Amino acid sequence: MNRNGILTVISGFSGAGKGTLIRELVKKPDYRLSISATTRLPREGEQNGREYFFLTKEEFEGMIKNNQLIEYAEYVGNYYGTPQEYVEEQLKMGYNVILEIEVQGAMKVKEKYPDALFLFVTPPSAAVLRERLVNRGTEDKETVQRRLSQAADEVDYMDKYDYLIVNDNLADCVEQMHRIISEQKNKIKYNQNFIHLIGKDLEGFKKGDR
Amino acid sequence: MNRNGILTVISGFSGAGKGTLIRELVKKPDYRLSISATTRLPREGEQNGREYFFLTKEEFEGMIKNNQLIEYAEYVGNYYGTPQEYVEEQLKMGYNVILEIEVQGAMKVKEKYPDALFLFVTPPSAAVLRERLVNRGTEDKETVQRRLSQAADEVDYMDKYDYLIVNDNLADCVEQMHRIISEQKNKIKYNQNFIHLIGKDLEGFKKGDR
Repeated sequence: MNRNGILTVISGFSGAGKGTLIRELVKKPDYRLSISATTRLPREGEQNGREYFFLTKEEFEGMIKNNQLIEYAEYVGNYYGTPQEYVEEQLKMGYNVILEIEVQGAMKVKEKYPDALFLFVTPPSAAVLRERLVNRGTEDKETVQRRLSQAADEVDYMDKYDYLIVNDNLADCVEQMHRIISEQKNKIKYNQNFIHLIGKDLEGFKKGDR
Repeated sequence: MNRNGILTVISGFSGAGKGTLIRELVKKPDYRLSISATTRLPREGEQNGREYFFLTKEEFEGMIKNNQLIEYAEYVGNYYGTPQEYVEEQLKMGYNVILEIEVQGAMKVKEKYPDALFLFVTPPSAAVLRERLVNRGTEDKETVQRRLSQAADEVDYMDKYDYLIVNDNLADCVEQMHRIISEQKNKIKYNQNFIHLIGKDLEGFKKGDR
C-alpha cells in the first residue's frame, strides 16, 4: 500500500537529549529531517540545505507573504521557519518527516496539521535535567538557570502532546520513537481508504452481488 | 513506576481471526483476558471461571441491578456480560486486560472507559474474509452470507476505534498489537503524575529554591 509518511513534531526540554535522539532516529530508512530556513549567517562548516536553508531577509519575507512556511519566528533579530514545500514533498513520497521545534512553534504546526504526531522528550526527572545541563560544562550558571526556568514554563505545553518520551537510554528511546511513529500507520484515521473499500465490497456481498 | 495496565477492547469481523490473535497475545506476560459472565449452560469441557463465569439468571440480574457489569446483552434467550470487578482488579495490578467484544458492546465499554484502547481486526480484504469463512467448512452458505452481511453492518463502527489491525500474518499481528498496547503507557494522558512532579520540581529550581 502506498501511503503518505507521518509528520512528527518533536519538542523537549533543553538538555533532554532530543538532538541526539533525532540524529539517530533519522538514520533509519524512511525518515527525513525537516530543514529550517533562517536569515542568520552560516557558521563555519554549515552548508546551505544541510543545517539550514540560508536566506536573505527579503527571500524569507517573501515566503511569509506567500504562505510557504508552516511556522516561523523571529529570534535575536533573525528569522527562523519551516518551509512547507520540502515537508509536503517528503510526506507524499512516504517518508516520515521529523520537525524538531520548540513548544510555541509546535503549537503553530498543530493548527495547520492537527493530525500530526507530537512527541515530548524529557529526562527522567528535573534533578537529572539540571545535572545534565551543569555537566555539559559549556554553560555558565546563569544560562543553566535560564534553561531550567524555560523548562518550567514549557511544562504547561506538555498536555498538548501525544506521547511522552523519557530519555533514560538512547538506544531504547530511539526504538520507542520509531515504533510509535511506525504504528501511526495503523491508526483508523490513516486508513479511511481501506475502510471505504472493504465497506463497499462487503455491501456488494450482502446484496448477493458477487 | 507502578502503573495501571491498559484496558484494550478488541473487535473485528467474524472470520478475521481475532480469536487466534487474542489467544496468542494473552500468552505474553502482563496480559489478562477478561472473562465474561453468561447464563447459558456450560458446554462439555468448559470450566467455570475459565471460558465463562456461569451464573443463574437471578445472579446475573443481581449484577445488572448492582451495576457490576461493564456491559451486557441478551442473545438467544441468554445473558452475556463483562463483570467489572475482575477487569478493575487486574488493571490495578498492572496487567493489560483484553476484552474481546462485538461492536455494540464495545461502544458501551467506550461510554464507561473513554480512555480505553480500541482495536479493530480485519482481514486484508472482503474477498479474503469470504474465502476464510467458506474454507472453514463448518458453516453452510446461509451462515456465511449472514456473517458477511453482519460484517458489512459493522463497517460503520470502525471509525470509533483507535487502530486497525490487518490480519495477514498471525505472528506479525500479535507483535503489532503488543507494541500498540505497550506504547499506550507513553501517552501523555497516562503520565499526568510524572508531568505534575517534574513541573513542581522545575518550578522549585526556577525560584532558586534548591
